[in-house]
Amino acid sequence: MLLPTPGRKLVVTTDVLVEGQHFTAALSGPEDWGWKAVAVNVSDLAAMGAVARWLVLALTVPDAAEVGTLQRVYAGIGEACGAFGVALVGGDVSAGPALSLAVTALGEAGQVVTRAGARPGDRLVVTGPLGAAAAGLALLRRDDEPARALLSRFPGLAAAHRRPAPDLGMGPRLAHAGATAMVDVSDGLAGDALHLAEASGVGVEVSDAAVPLAPGVAEAAALLGRDPVALALGGGEDFVLAAALPRTADLGGVLDCGRFTADPHRRVHQTAAGALPLDGLAFDHFRRRG
Amino acid sequence: MLLPTPGRKLVVTTDVLVEGQHFTAALSGPEDWGWKAVAVNVSDLAAMGAVARWLVLALTVPDAAEVGTLQRVYAGIGEACGAFGVALVGGDVSAGPALSLAVTALGEAGQVVTRAGARPGDRLVVTGPLGAAAAGLALLRRDDEPARALLSRFPGLAAAHRRPAPDLGMGPRLAHAGATAMVDVSDGLAGDALHLAEASGVGVEVSDAAVPLAPGVAEAAALLGRDPVALALGGGEDFVLAAALPRTADLGGVLDCGRFTADPHRRVHQTAAGALPLDGLAFDHFRRRG
Repeated sequence: MLLPTPGRKLVVTTDVLVEGQHFTAALSGPEDWGWKAVAVNVSDLAAMGAVARWLVLALTVPDAAEVGTLQRVYAGIGEACGAFGVALVGGDVSAGPALSLAVTALGEAGQVVTRAGARPGDRLVVTGPLGAAAAGLALLRRDDEPARALLSRFPGLAAAHRRPAPDLGMGPRLAHAGATAMVDVSDGLAGDALHLAEASGVGVEVSDAAVPLAPGVAEAAALLGRDPVALALGGGEDFVLAAALPRTADLGGVLDCGRFTADPHRRVHQTAAGALPLDGLAFDHFRRRG
Repeated sequence: MLLPTPGRKLVVTTDVLVEGQHFTAALSGPEDWGWKAVAVNVSDLAAMGAVARWLVLALTVPDAAEVGTLQRVYAGIGEACGAFGVALVGGDVSAGPALSLAVTALGEAGQVVTRAGARPGDRLVVTGPLGAAAAGLALLRRDDEPARALLSRFPGLAAAHRRPAPDLGMGPRLAHAGATAMVDVSDGLAGDALHLAEASGVGVEVSDAAVPLAPGVAEAAALLGRDPVALALGGGEDFVLAAALPRTADLGGVLDCGRFTADPHRRVHQTAAGALPLDGLAFDHFRRRG
């Protein structure tokens, strides 16, 4: 949220991760949970065009939690703070029935971009390939021999689920280049493109053929018996940015995968079989469970 | 935590309340929980000399929670935001095994006061009477006929537990008057005076005879078979401010209840029976449970 402070604009966001909801010891380790709690918040700041600066953490810890586990959570937080250039500046710890990490992140922006502002004719761009986190999570859950073989062959898949690494520089660059709306892809591009279109009151067309798939997503989809583009669009916390960019904007490092249109009743993806509504993909069971 | 922004200083704090740890449906209502989540955070900002401006809320909600309960929590948050002059500017909601409210509050300060800075010779002052929250909680838990009669005769006791109402103006006024260290009384004055002395590397003497008791605390203590001053010092979330104030400072509206001294090994309260260590009172079972 934009805070009206003097000078550069101050931006704040908050996101809570809860054991059993967003992470579980079966699929990732305590360091990963700490890392991810930082990553999802700094990603959200990048999506507003801001540079992340500070974090506070409100932790709830079950009585049965081991000190070693908490030390590993903090180690992951520390690693992420170092990697993303942010400082943990405050916190609170309470007992509670599940481990949860509520992080509030503060950042600074020259130019703040919201979800509302996309205009008909704007390009829909993303800052990286999609589907790795959804594929990684599905394979980690499946955990049979072929799944393990794929995870070993494409280490980026499990890493995308466990250690999302948003490219924080792209947020301010997109804002500076004139992005009219922006979001980070935390629910799958189908859902997040819908978020942009809804907030902006416009239509959107995603082109399936243009959706950039991360390495291993096609192979994972084949094993899982799913359509790879549907896997990439329908779920997963890829933590790349999705933005509406005017055709006149000049910016490298972004990948086109659709466009915004004038008809707010038409929010679709173009498949080989024709246009299908995006909301058929947007609430996939992969959504925000981990 | 002080954030080095240009212009006025930006201050941030976070505090999480968890059902079963900090509140329970047996003793207070959902509106109270929302109110309290705001109050404890803005109180913490006041204790740094700051004026609270913005809040973000990360809520976790059990699947079994009723929508009506959440609406009442939000109503309490709204009431408190109105009463304290702060704006809720962001949030996140997640499923989780218990209702928890992680609030992060941001404020602005001209002059920031920390816990470290009290000097030998400084007065120990508080901004209001003590013991109402501890007495209220004890009577609510006891819930027999005499306890209910006292709660009815002194409505401020239950209100102090359920709806703490920090005087936010006093924080900046104390900072402006030259307070050298400050804290809000959230664990009982014994514990919080110890926090100030420890952070400042000095001694402290609390004078039992000078401790201002809230209306009804003496009567509650008599019913509970406890010493009223011990009840007031040992626990309870009174959310008044405790500060170290130089003898030369000129400020009305504060109550003297002791002084800071040069000997860091002597942190005591003066009783009728002589000086006793403060840490004998500071970890009372009333501490932060509700």
